[in-house]
Amino acid sequence: MQQPRWAKRAQDIQPFHVMAVLARAKALEAQGRDVIHMEIGEPDFTTPDPIIRAGQAALANGHTGYTSALGLTALREAVAGLYAKRYGIDLDPRRVVITPGGSAALLLISALLVEAGQNVLMADPAYPCNRHFLRLVEGQAKLIPAGADTAYQLTPQAIEHHWDVNSVAVLAASPSNPTGTLLDRDQLKAIAEVTRRLGGHLIVDEIYHGLTYSRDATSALEVSPDAFVLNSFSKYFGMTGWRLGWLVAPEEAVPELEKLAQNLYICAPHMAQVAALAAFEEESLAICEVRREAFQVRRDFLLPAVRELGFDIPITPDGAFYLYADMRKLGGDSAALCRHLIETEHVAITPGLDFGHHRADQHVRFAYTTSLERLEQAVDRLARGLRQWPAC
Amino acid sequence: MQQPRWAKRAQDIQPFHVMAVLARAKALEAQGRDVIHMEIGEPDFTTPDPIIRAGQAALANGHTGYTSALGLTALREAVAGLYAKRYGIDLDPRRVVITPGGSAALLLISALLVEAGQNVLMADPAYPCNRHFLRLVEGQAKLIPAGADTAYQLTPQAIEHHWDVNSVAVLAASPSNPTGTLLDRDQLKAIAEVTRRLGGHLIVDEIYHGLTYSRDATSALEVSPDAFVLNSFSKYFGMTGWRLGWLVAPEEAVPELEKLAQNLYICAPHMAQVAALAAFEEESLAICEVRREAFQVRRDFLLPAVRELGFDIPITPDGAFYLYADMRKLGGDSAALCRHLIETEHVAITPGLDFGHHRADQHVRFAYTTSLERLEQAVDRLARGLRQWPAC
Repeated sequence: MQQPRWAKRAQDIQPFHVMAVLARAKALEAQGRDVIHMEIGEPDFTTPDPIIRAGQAALANGHTGYTSALGLTALREAVAGLYAKRYGIDLDPRRVVITPGGSAALLLISALLVEAGQNVLMADPAYPCNRHFLRLVEGQAKLIPAGADTAYQLTPQAIEHHWDVNSVAVLAASPSNPTGTLLDRDQLKAIAEVTRRLGGHLIVDEIYHGLTYSRDATSALEVSPDAFVLNSFSKYFGMTGWRLGWLVAPEEAVPELEKLAQNLYICAPHMAQVAALAAFEEESLAICEVRREAFQVRRDFLLPAVRELGFDIPITPDGAFYLYADMRKLGGDSAALCRHLIETEHVAITPGLDFGHHRADQHVRFAYTTSLERLEQAVDRLARGLRQWPAC
Repeated sequence: MQQPRWAKRAQDIQPFHVMAVLARAKALEAQGRDVIHMEIGEPDFTTPDPIIRAGQAALANGHTGYTSALGLTALREAVAGLYAKRYGIDLDPRRVVITPGGSAALLLISALLVEAGQNVLMADPAYPCNRHFLRLVEGQAKLIPAGADTAYQLTPQAIEHHWDVNSVAVLAASPSNPTGTLLDRDQLKAIAEVTRRLGGHLIVDEIYHGLTYSRDATSALEVSPDAFVLNSFSKYFGMTGWRLGWLVAPEEAVPELEKLAQNLYICAPHMAQVAALAAFEEESLAICEVRREAFQVRRDFLLPAVRELGFDIPITPDGAFYLYADMRKLGGDSAALCRHLIETEHVAITPGLDFGHHRADQHVRFAYTTSLERLEQAVDRLARGLRQWPAC
């Protein structure tokens, strides 16, 4: 064959580096070793019972066919209701697009907004798939180095500085994965204003909303009604495996998104849509709230303990379930440290390399998606493992 | 704003024209009219009970988290087992990629194989989303007009004739949507050979396998082990709303596909994967077989009846649940005829325009995804509607 076997795109879309850690963890577990998983980006709780029961009933009632591409009307209304309740926003349900996971919301946005050769500004570090969706459609992520001085977030100044003729949008995340930091109302407003002035679209990833610990998260829709806001039932509602999310879009974008959805995935899983209606019931919300509190207890334990071990976490992460830790003082390279810790202490964490380039080799991500008891064991093991860390 | 609001891609990706028919159908139904739906591309049966029960049990057992991107090992093995049983093929389960619907299989293939500016050859008429997935990644569908003389399928001669320096793959479908026609073993083999000689990849859509009426369908894997073959639990197994399909790929493509899957959709719905394990049980297969026979009875009724009405269907469709009918003798334009029939007789069918350009305005698609009784009523209404058809 004369041509290369696969498109260049496939080379450019990176695997998650944590997969090597995970593969090693599984091999160790197959040998009977006890691995503590702090690399996993999903809650360690199964879906709340009322949602499970609603899913079972949906199946019993034959909700097994396609739905319309935008999703069930009742669910779009329920999501709009969440915005009224949580943020005091009057949101037209017709602006809510139900998607198969937050992933599909990113797919739709990339397809709709980004021409080949155009770029979207985002912070480095960020959720890695963001840039790969842009690569899929022959666009680019323009990664803006973001450090502790801006809570790892974009600023209006940085946006203005990096915006170029090929820029079409700004993508922010609050709370951010991997840093857990939030953008407050004033920051969101300032970012929305500069983006609007530059003629771009604002996209905000609010997938970790609901999982905040010291203060509530502001929705971009509170300050910028024409923002594209993506969210998901995965994290707060514990529904990762159902593959269900949503996108709030400007009214005039919805017919375009409907067309793209029809073609690209037909619809989100039907039974998941029916089940998710139960997510908004008091009983489910009470369960989610107990879980949020459990995450908070874990964060409040893990954050000082990890700092004590010599990791630098200058900004207190107020949301999600991650600590993004600077390991520069410990010496060496973060990917090597991850390998060392899985190998010697069977603790799995994620190297910074998975989230971008900016000082990625000096950072690791801890996920507190395991029990407090396991986190306590993990801290003991980390302490021991770091004493053997060659670079110390 | 100086730039156009949406990417050109959004303009190029067409809505389904049948949506206008469907919207009108819904409006009529809201007025209390009785609409016969022959436009819908999904079985009118709900998912077989054993699969429903397995889905409910999956939820009860907490299968609500992510799976690995390639899917559950047990399901990949069960799919490989289907190839052994149905086609006598020894397929390595590691070559099976579980996807969220056949749609995601097309997404993966487009992302993996097609560089910006490159093209994939396919028959016109064809499933419309095929060309839109290529547009998504800035590639192109090269549509090859295919008429009744080749059973609306590609031929080695046509492939050789239309192949150009930017061609990277050939996409065939057997049975085809919208025509229901099959490629037999010799035809598949000849297409595979010419594609290989040209240095291209062969992609075959086998989503309607299992739903054949006069003869079994041959899998491309029987004659071309390195073909990309996509399939789905939607049609034969009646699982449309679960969003579950699969892709069989050459071994060396699987790590690339895994990486793409991780980034583009994370995994297929977990509970659907567990439920689908029950699809291969005798009880489920027996139900699917009864349904296949029902489709055959419908086809055997509808095909002569529609021919009698003046539609030309020169090739007997051996699979899927569609008749692709030439309405040239009736005069006028097929989209206008669809509007006339929904308006006057409340029968919904799909205009040829949804499937390509080649004589699209002279064809309509009838789906026999409704009961025999309703099909009989439909034929009566169609006869009356055609008597009022202005062009007659």
